[in-house]
Amino acid sequence: MRVGCTRIPVMNRLSPAQQAALQSTFGERLSLRAADRASHGRDESFYAPAEPDAVLFAESVEDVQALVAWCHAERVPLIPFGAGTSLEGHVLAVQGGISLDLMRLNRILRIDAEDLSCSVEPGVTREQLNAALRDQGLFFPIDPGANASLGGMAATRASGTNAVRYGTLRENVLGLHAVLPALGLIRAGSRAKKSSAGYDLARLLVGSEGTLGVITELTLKLHPLPEQVAAAAVQFPSVAAAVRTTIALVQSGVPIARCELLDVHAVRAVNAHDGLGLAEAPLLLLEFHGSASSVREQIETVQACAAEQGGLQFAWAETPEARSKLWRARHHAYWSALQSRPGCRCLTTDVCVPISRLAEAVETAVAAAEAAQQPHFIVGHVGDGNFHIGYLIDPARPEELARAEALAAQLVQLALALEGTCSGEHGVGLHKQGFLLQEAGAPAVAAMRAIKAALDPHGVMNPGKIFSRQG
Amino acid sequence: MRVGCTRIPVMNRLSPAQQAALQSTFGERLSLRAADRASHGRDESFYAPAEPDAVLFAESVEDVQALVAWCHAERVPLIPFGAGTSLEGHVLAVQGGISLDLMRLNRILRIDAEDLSCSVEPGVTREQLNAALRDQGLFFPIDPGANASLGGMAATRASGTNAVRYGTLRENVLGLHAVLPALGLIRAGSRAKKSSAGYDLARLLVGSEGTLGVITELTLKLHPLPEQVAAAAVQFPSVAAAVRTTIALVQSGVPIARCELLDVHAVRAVNAHDGLGLAEAPLLLLEFHGSASSVREQIETVQACAAEQGGLQFAWAETPEARSKLWRARHHAYWSALQSRPGCRCLTTDVCVPISRLAEAVETAVAAAEAAQQPHFIVGHVGDGNFHIGYLIDPARPEELARAEALAAQLVQLALALEGTCSGEHGVGLHKQGFLLQEAGAPAVAAMRAIKAALDPHGVMNPGKIFSRQG
Repeated sequence: MRVGCTRIPVMNRLSPAQQAALQSTFGERLSLRAADRASHGRDESFYAPAEPDAVLFAESVEDVQALVAWCHAERVPLIPFGAGTSLEGHVLAVQGGISLDLMRLNRILRIDAEDLSCSVEPGVTREQLNAALRDQGLFFPIDPGANASLGGMAATRASGTNAVRYGTLRENVLGLHAVLPALGLIRAGSRAKKSSAGYDLARLLVGSEGTLGVITELTLKLHPLPEQVAAAAVQFPSVAAAVRTTIALVQSGVPIARCELLDVHAVRAVNAHDGLGLAEAPLLLLEFHGSASSVREQIETVQACAAEQGGLQFAWAETPEARSKLWRARHHAYWSALQSRPGCRCLTTDVCVPISRLAEAVETAVAAAEAAQQPHFIVGHVGDGNFHIGYLIDPARPEELARAEALAAQLVQLALALEGTCSGEHGVGLHKQGFLLQEAGAPAVAAMRAIKAALDPHGVMNPGKIFSRQG
Repeated sequence: MRVGCTRIPVMNRLSPAQQAALQSTFGERLSLRAADRASHGRDESFYAPAEPDAVLFAESVEDVQALVAWCHAERVPLIPFGAGTSLEGHVLAVQGGISLDLMRLNRILRIDAEDLSCSVEPGVTREQLNAALRDQGLFFPIDPGANASLGGMAATRASGTNAVRYGTLRENVLGLHAVLPALGLIRAGSRAKKSSAGYDLARLLVGSEGTLGVITELTLKLHPLPEQVAAAAVQFPSVAAAVRTTIALVQSGVPIARCELLDVHAVRAVNAHDGLGLAEAPLLLLEFHGSASSVREQIETVQACAAEQGGLQFAWAETPEARSKLWRARHHAYWSALQSRPGCRCLTTDVCVPISRLAEAVETAVAAAEAAQQPHFIVGHVGDGNFHIGYLIDPARPEELARAEALAAQLVQLALALEGTCSGEHGVGLHKQGFLLQEAGAPAVAAMRAIKAALDPHGVMNPGKIFSRQG
């Protein structure tokens, strides 16, 4: 499956009659064009592209309902497609079928400022939503870096920076609508802040990676824009010192809004790419939200914690522009690091561990990469115990991929031994299926499969993802 | 089903061979005694008792596994039983079977202070846990009033006071172990703060009311004891003014820890029962957690909001003892109100609405009860949009029950029209099955049933709850 840059050539597996039926139902919204199939057969993961047989550009919930029903009846795979920013191969049509592009379903349906909530279609991106909210003094905090679609973020249970304070998609979905193969359109949750009415179908769909149904509407929690925001870059003599500072902060209960680690390799990359001019040393990027006095208190605590760990210097981003520059650089870290080794590809881990074990996990990962002389960098949502070590690989040298795979697998083993998880936020997708089995255990994965079989009895929803073989 | 105080007499439906098999496996931990069956056939709801055929006092996870496997094989209903504090008939053995008493599984397995987490067996009560945490400077915030078992609180997705700031059981479970009929013991979640590894089985079990499996271990989030705590009682000229103050507070983003409403009837009742000496006027009970300056800021905001709504007076509870007295009185409100009409029973609603619609919901509920001359009282976790109107009924007069049922049904209709939920925290149990169908819609309930059938194919787990007919 995992073959670097080699594309798997596939025939279109739809019969002429199936193609005709789809075209008759959807007209020009259905595309069989090579360019559309190619662009919907790849994401930002390391995987070889796998093209769908057709792409439906849905323009209504009725389009989604019609396609789901058709795929269910015809036993044709259906792969929901958002912004295509998955890092785990979620949108690759590994068994062919129809890619359901949801990006035209991009209306913000309502903003209920008084209730701190909104409803959106799945193709709305987080930046689009935040642009619409700004005038209302509100924001949607979940920020995985990429300008992902909210439907895709829900499907992978995304988080990113800010989750340390505001939670992940899981905590920020009040309700959703989804189309299931056997049961059609369902509503889950409500606009109330909490509910004990029946099984929590909303949180079952969140993180299901398109394997149970297609999310067609999300009702999300919003947050008031903080009265004051301050950001700082603090540098440390070692990654370990930065991590120990993070642990102390989290244990102190400081409601820090962002706490991101960049190791020296990532710092060099963002210096080169975004001209930040930082010292070449490990870095914590921090953001504080609250009232003026609360922000002041948080900063004092952070300064004390950092000083104890030999924090070298604080650089403040006072203005919104300076803050934006800092966070843009953080979000560019992945691509900046890729450019640091021209022509390379990146294999990224996503482990998340209890905060008390974070130093051990990071130090072990770094030592192993260095011992193997594997070029790498680290960025991490360390306030949550989640970090990514990216292994930079020359695709012309298969032994580098094998080495990186081995390092990544070792790190997952360590994270599981530390009672953490193989995936903090990217999802299982194609590559972590064995890790999931190991982490959750066979009976729990059997329970997931049983749920999958109950809601998608013909196995048409995004087959080949999460589970190594579909029911 | 709903027959006031009349007990439904049932024969023991276990065959002599079944009884012998159970006794051989479990010895004296299995009870067929009338007193045990009677005490496990009732909860704190309005329902007539429905006795199980036997009670197993489990002393190990192996006991739970053995009983679940046996009930699955023998097609005998199994009803998990905790502290028996359900208000919705969850533990009533309406189809007979075995009541699985989990209160001997009451060990706190570990407290990981550095990770702000702990693991407990399901029979640990919230007060027991908080007593063990106090020395560590930590607490578990979810507080439904009753000293419920944590397993039962997870099974009903409980919340209560404090949820406005700290979330419900849903947000505070990191992971759990559960025994499922067809699949045995599963692990869901981990000790990491977040995860995107597979379906969120932990949140599927939370709120499943014992209909999918038996929770045998919970890993819970903990919170640092706040540096400062302040509590206040503020009285208002009307319930509407108290509610409008709440709405303003929530919309301002003040991180208030508790915001509880008592109407004048509830205030009278707690005055009589706990000698609070409050003015006979609607009341908000408030609690503030944070640093000294944060608490001061919160109080200033609350005072400004209350003043705008004609808040009559602030009574401060400065000492821990005074705070305890205030919250004890709040927790006694239900029982105090029952005593205000000797011999009565209480039918309690549990609607939760978006905060912007809370005033409309409360005012309509009060007007309807007054128009019907139905004795009632209101207590509510109004910061979450959740309130309970309790209708006090003379069990000797069936027309009072009918009237209260009609009022409760009207209120649910209103809550659903306002895009809220029929149950904020008590669960569906026996009585809200029709409301759930209306709220979630037939396709979503069909999805819940499909999941139930997939995980409990013989329908032995707590049959008759959530869904009106099993399987």
